[in-house]
Amino acid sequence: MIEEIVRAAQGMKGAMIAQRRDFHQYAEVGWTEFRTASIVADTLTTLGYEVLVGEEVIAAEAMMGVPSPQELERQAQRAIDQGADPMWVEKMSGGKTGVVGIMTFSQQGPTVALRFDLDANDVTEVQEEGHRPYHEKFASVNEGAMHACGHDGHAAVGLALASMLVDFQGTLGGRIKLIFQPAEEGVRGAKAMVTKGIVDDVDYLIGMHFGFKMQKIGQLVCNVKGFLATTKLDVEFTGIPAHAGAAPEEGRNALLAAAAAATYLHGISRHGQGTSRINVGMMQAGTGRNVIPAHAILKLETRGATSEINEYMYKEAIRIIESAATMQDVTVKISEQGRAAGGSNSPEMVNFIEKIAGELGIFNEIVAQCDFNASEDCSYFMERVQQRGGQAAYVMVGTDLAAGHHDSRFDFDEEALVLGLGLLGSIAQKILQAK
Amino acid sequence: MIEEIVRAAQGMKGAMIAQRRDFHQYAEVGWTEFRTASIVADTLTTLGYEVLVGEEVIAAEAMMGVPSPQELERQAQRAIDQGADPMWVEKMSGGKTGVVGIMTFSQQGPTVALRFDLDANDVTEVQEEGHRPYHEKFASVNEGAMHACGHDGHAAVGLALASMLVDFQGTLGGRIKLIFQPAEEGVRGAKAMVTKGIVDDVDYLIGMHFGFKMQKIGQLVCNVKGFLATTKLDVEFTGIPAHAGAAPEEGRNALLAAAAAATYLHGISRHGQGTSRINVGMMQAGTGRNVIPAHAILKLETRGATSEINEYMYKEAIRIIESAATMQDVTVKISEQGRAAGGSNSPEMVNFIEKIAGELGIFNEIVAQCDFNASEDCSYFMERVQQRGGQAAYVMVGTDLAAGHHDSRFDFDEEALVLGLGLLGSIAQKILQAK
Amino acid sequence: MIEEIVRAAQGMKGAMIAQRRDFHQYAEVGWTEFRTASIVADTLTTLGYEVLVGEEVIAAEAMMGVPSPQELERQAQRAIDQGADPMWVEKMSGGKTGVVGIMTFSQQGPTVALRFDLDANDVTEVQEEGHRPYHEKFASVNEGAMHACGHDGHAAVGLALASMLVDFQGTLGGRIKLIFQPAEEGVRGAKAMVTKGIVDDVDYLIGMHFGFKMQKIGQLVCNVKGFLATTKLDVEFTGIPAHAGAAPEEGRNALLAAAAAATYLHGISRHGQGTSRINVGMMQAGTGRNVIPAHAILKLETRGATSEINEYMYKEAIRIIESAATMQDVTVKISEQGRAAGGSNSPEMVNFIEKIAGELGIFNEIVAQCDFNASEDCSYFMERVQQRGGQAAYVMVGTDLAAGHHDSRFDFDEEALVLGLGLLGSIAQKILQAK
Amino acid sequence: MIEEIVRAAQGMKGAMIAQRRDFHQYAEVGWTEFRTASIVADTLTTLGYEVLVGEEVIAAEAMMGVPSPQELERQAQRAIDQGADPMWVEKMSGGKTGVVGIMTFSQQGPTVALRFDLDANDVTEVQEEGHRPYHEKFASVNEGAMHACGHDGHAAVGLALASMLVDFQGTLGGRIKLIFQPAEEGVRGAKAMVTKGIVDDVDYLIGMHFGFKMQKIGQLVCNVKGFLATTKLDVEFTGIPAHAGAAPEEGRNALLAAAAAATYLHGISRHGQGTSRINVGMMQAGTGRNVIPAHAILKLETRGATSEINEYMYKEAIRIIESAATMQDVTVKISEQGRAAGGSNSPEMVNFIEKIAGELGIFNEIVAQCDFNASEDCSYFMERVQQRGGQAAYVMVGTDLAAGHHDSRFDFDEEALVLGLGLLGSIAQKILQAK
Repeated sequence: MIEEIVRAAQGMKGAMIAQRRDFHQYAEVGWTEFRTASIVADTLTTLGYEVLVGEEVIAAEAMMGVPSPQELERQAQRAIDQGADPMWVEKMSGGKTGVVGIMTFSQQGPTVALRFDLDANDVTEVQEEGHRPYHEKFASVNEGAMHACGHDGHAAVGLALASMLVDFQGTLGGRIKLIFQPAEEGVRGAKAMVTKGIVDDVDYLIGMHFGFKMQKIGQLVCNVKGFLATTKLDVEFTGIPAHAGAAPEEGRNALLAAAAAATYLHGISRHGQGTSRINVGMMQAGTGRNVIPAHAILKLETRGATSEINEYMYKEAIRIIESAATMQDVTVKISEQGRAAGGSNSPEMVNFIEKIAGELGIFNEIVAQCDFNASEDCSYFMERVQQRGGQAAYVMVGTDLAAGHHDSRFDFDEEALVLGLGLLGSIAQKILQAK
Repeated sequence: MIEEIVRAAQGMKGAMIAQRRDFHQYAEVGWTEFRTASIVADTLTTLGYEVLVGEEVIAAEAMMGVPSPQELERQAQRAIDQGADPMWVEKMSGGKTGVVGIMTFSQQGPTVALRFDLDANDVTEVQEEGHRPYHEKFASVNEGAMHACGHDGHAAVGLALASMLVDFQGTLGGRIKLIFQPAEEGVRGAKAMVTKGIVDDVDYLIGMHFGFKMQKIGQLVCNVKGFLATTKLDVEFTGIPAHAGAAPEEGRNALLAAAAAATYLHGISRHGQGTSRINVGMMQAGTGRNVIPAHAILKLETRGATSEINEYMYKEAIRIIESAATMQDVTVKISEQGRAAGGSNSPEMVNFIEKIAGELGIFNEIVAQCDFNASEDCSYFMERVQQRGGQAAYVMVGTDLAAGHHDSRFDFDEEALVLGLGLLGSIAQKILQAK
Repeated sequence: MIEEIVRAAQGMKGAMIAQRRDFHQYAEVGWTEFRTASIVADTLTTLGYEVLVGEEVIAAEAMMGVPSPQELERQAQRAIDQGADPMWVEKMSGGKTGVVGIMTFSQQGPTVALRFDLDANDVTEVQEEGHRPYHEKFASVNEGAMHACGHDGHAAVGLALASMLVDFQGTLGGRIKLIFQPAEEGVRGAKAMVTKGIVDDVDYLIGMHFGFKMQKIGQLVCNVKGFLATTKLDVEFTGIPAHAGAAPEEGRNALLAAAAAATYLHGISRHGQGTSRINVGMMQAGTGRNVIPAHAILKLETRGATSEINEYMYKEAIRIIESAATMQDVTVKISEQGRAAGGSNSPEMVNFIEKIAGELGIFNEIVAQCDFNASEDCSYFMERVQQRGGQAAYVMVGTDLAAGHHDSRFDFDEEALVLGLGLLGSIAQKILQAK
Repeated sequence: MIEEIVRAAQGMKGAMIAQRRDFHQYAEVGWTEFRTASIVADTLTTLGYEVLVGEEVIAAEAMMGVPSPQELERQAQRAIDQGADPMWVEKMSGGKTGVVGIMTFSQQGPTVALRFDLDANDVTEVQEEGHRPYHEKFASVNEGAMHACGHDGHAAVGLALASMLVDFQGTLGGRIKLIFQPAEEGVRGAKAMVTKGIVDDVDYLIGMHFGFKMQKIGQLVCNVKGFLATTKLDVEFTGIPAHAGAAPEEGRNALLAAAAAATYLHGISRHGQGTSRINVGMMQAGTGRNVIPAHAILKLETRGATSEINEYMYKEAIRIIESAATMQDVTVKISEQGRAAGGSNSPEMVNFIEKIAGELGIFNEIVAQCDFNASEDCSYFMERVQQRGGQAAYVMVGTDLAAGHHDSRFDFDEEALVLGLGLLGSIAQKILQAK
């Protein structure tokens, strides 16, 4: 069986490359993946999956960091111009660009979910001959949007897997859910799908990422630990301007409020139970040298080794920001722009996947363990599944890179598509194989 | 008439010196002037004044910086042991050690008030042969209490004036009020007497201080400007201790709250309308190096060129302190320990007194003007009288000093007693002289 | 004589209006007044003045807040395109757009200097029918540059005065220096002219401003007090970026350095000798939420009632900024963008000008005194002249305004041109009149 | 052999209790253990050990947190009064109260060191009937000094072990070093002994502590991990006082410097490689409300999961403190009061000791692993031995406690003495047994 899957994966290489390059060329950033998601939905429908999109899979109240309605409208129109089916785009209005494909097999068995992310980065791709996507003419045509994190590849693997499972369906029992998530960048999208409950019935969940800490083709790590839970916040202080020479006491100083907040945020006490992080990454305040600054913004993030530690950081941060505002008698508005859970792979899944990966014979190096020490909102799906008694894992499939993630020269070795599909296909088959 | 007063003042020099030295020897700090005030009350009674003491002249709710009941009790007992009449001490229970002597003359006329302060400093007097009070055996026998600001002299002049006015009563009309105020140090006492309304019927009020900015015998300044309004605050933060290595996140850090408060208090914006001041003069926090500090105190003061500017500083300070507490999730208690008004002498009074001083012929140098740039709660009496349409002035009678005010070697030239009495006697006589 | 001057001033009204509107239409901001200064130089030359420009009147090392060489080049070319004589523009290369016209009269007498400023504001003028300059077609054609502070009028008065003095030269002795200063906005230009020594031989110096605190036509204030000395600083912190999740300890945080600097700058102690001010008006730091911010800028200003107090503020500020950088292990570059002295009018000049103004009979209201409480670099000229034993004054000639200074709808009543010329002409004539 | 050792240990119980109670009664705090160390030196000498004391085992330049010479003198005298041999006390002058006993066995073998600490805590023992040491009359007679951390027991075990090894010497090879260390509290003493080189020839080092995280008699933990490296610092800022009303600008504010230091110390960035800690546990500043505070002290500590991380924290701390001083133009003196290394037990030693402990049959519960998450300067000895290729371990021998460590009611179950001696004796015998 394993051999058949490997063979099948190799046979789909060309199709995956073509699909990946199509997604790459029409890169769409978080919550605007109208074209990408429409193609996903179309393909799944054609393959015979039950397909849920838009508000069927996205809880509006849990969407974070959504572009303005005008921007969403503009991107939806562009997607249609670039070939998206208006019927799907309509269903995804408001940026609800998530898709879930479900297939229930005739025999009994568990529910398995695989999660793929869809969105591009806020990066403008280089136009240089030495950059393969440019040279081979699939560089992004959308300025300010580029697949510089490999999600184009993830989505292509997801669709190929959908097809492969249809081919093997006779041997399978239970149910498969293929989750195509928008807005992973900035950890904005997963919460809205989890809140909608789409993994509440899932027994096994697997996420996959190309590259990241595995930057050689043929590498694989199954035991990913140390997802940092995180919250992304935007803060806006509003005071009162005044002439700094004549009547400074009439001002209410938003710059000083922001400076106090930044200072004391970095002073939040470490946590005795594990890693915590805080960063105020951006501050802008004031207009002129001789005016008491009446406006200031901060962009910041908290992190924690567990969701609990991040929650501690978050609560401290909120209180500090609000009291910094009070201290300067200015008002403040805090908005959440992203959020991911902490966590680790389920140990049984790690063992299970390592065993399969060994049998597959297509990986050169199976790395024992990897400390993630960063944030990915796949952790939200994992946490929910684990909390409800299921198992979850996130694997990193190695690939050589032309440049680091989020770099405007990013590109990866497309052989990784075959390896990823081979692995996920085998995992799904093993779990779902009819008794 | 002027000549008679000068002669009378000179004749009372010996009595004043004796009285001043007695007060000096039994120095009593703010709100514990039981013996001093008892002697004042006794003397005024004997001279025929109507005498009000204790709750008749002190509004309990406006007393600030009062010692503990135990301490008051201890000091009251000491006063009795040192010769105070228990009847008066009883009337002054709770530290209400103010005295007002009133005499109404048979003819019509205005109401004139003169204010004298009674309290010593929290200073232990040196015991050195070179220090005259020690050498001449009138140094303070009360450890931790010393007349290092000349209030012993002020009170002696007040009693001599009481006597002089009795001698001259046949020539006078209207009414005299001799106000003996406790707790001027720390500007704690005046508010309680003003709140009681004791100057609400006063047309002219005069305060006097020896030395300060006039440190030569024979100098006089009548035009004192720039009393800084002030508020004295004690702040106490209470957090939660925790082990700094094992569980720092369980602590609530009072030290950081106090540090934030101190930092941002000093950052209160300057005021476009005039001088403002802020000082956090003392901070104590924490117990051990490896414990999150759960306790902190601050002692601070605000000042302003006017009561309005000080009020601005005070309001800012309160908000900053409270939000610094909130920022660290600790509780805070703020208590007012003292308060004085801003203000300046009434211009007409300045002119009037300068004219008299010139006629007296006992001053070598009449200084045109003096910027006080400090705080004195006589300003409270002045502000109230001026607000009600009366006039007020504060004069500084120069005197050579052995050491600066509040120094444990402080002493002054007792000739100043004669000059002070001559000046105040003349002023009172001129205003009150029957038509 | 006074009457003749008033009549002459009224006769020049049309010429002044035309000149002012020409300057207005081709507004040029600080250090780029190539066209304006060329016209001034041309006119003075034609009138027979000795004319000094460029490096003859500007000390390069003392120029502050100068645009980039590219920008200067671009503006010089625009000036030529808009009619400036390339010969003058060449002499003013590097932005040295100051002009001094000198005339020595045949008879003995003192040296009198009058100072006019030339530059426009960084404001784009509105294009609305209700805005007179637009309606009457003399609105600025240079985007981002607008005479919104009346310097166009000041320069027009200066040129008219140059002409008037030629007409009256037979009656005069001594020497006149007409100083046309660039870059008054941001108090950037005066220091470079003073450093060059152009007022080192001046006995009397007068500066004039339309409007400001006198916003009614016919008003005049001769006793302007309380120029605040000031320094304008730009600060740039440079640290090291790092990933905020994976390796925050590798970063060097420029945002925290800037926040600390802002916080403690506002905490600089008040000064016992008079007014001080500090304002951090702008802060920008960081690039992304999850990156330790490696770059930050501050724009700030210090002020003081005297040059000494401002120097205290400046020194404190420099030390605080540098130590805030050290604290975060980042580098810092501080650049001075402007500077003005403190000071007040010479009392004799005040009396002298008030007397003349009274005689002129063209002012409705002569205001007794005005607290400037702001900064103007005319104070630099005044301070130098006063330090060398001369006298100096700054007068404000009232005028109704369409909108406040620096507003894009600013306009003033051109009758003020006549009043200003009448006043300055009379002053100059009185001082210089041959014995 | 094991059985013999257990039997021997049980036989020495009475002697150990007597010795422990003697040390307890005459408790001496860090660097003043003159009597305790003298008794240790005497006993070892009597038993035939080569005995090194004073400057033979303590590097003066590495002593931290040493009391004043006056205090040392006072304590040395008290020790003599309480029975110490003046000869030893003399050798330990300056507080060099460390002792090392060395015995070299006739046969070849490794060098084994066992480390015991000697000092009491800065605690005054309660005098209550319910407190056994009081009831049984061995409570500390030295006010302010109490064995509230069990070091009295450690030292008693050390002397019993010295005796036991003499009894067993015929079966042993190699060399034993018994290290009696002063000033463990505040992690002040180990560095001075390590710097002297006394463990540079050691192959195996074992430290032991009663109780701590093992608070039941019969418990044992051999795998102690996560010693936090630490540095203890005292900081003293000195500024210039000034009157806060009249001339605040003349002051140099030490309180604000200390507040800034505290604030930014807590803002030191977390470290990506592991746990870090910072705590400013104490701050005292200023004298009076109306005086610019000219003096401030801080007591703080840094910690890190490794010596490298602590070194990062330390370097950041020093720079921040120094720049906070510069910022307020005050001077600063930083003194190191204590230091410990990070680290963990050598895995081979853990296995080895666990095996022995199992064989002994006297422990009810052998706990698998313990995260120390605190600091102990035994880590200094361990680090040095491990760096030179040796092995080291620290074991915690459980014991029921009357109250927590450092509590004035602390007491432990003396049965632990037998368990500790049995374990250490067995370990030493196993390693040293002659082949």
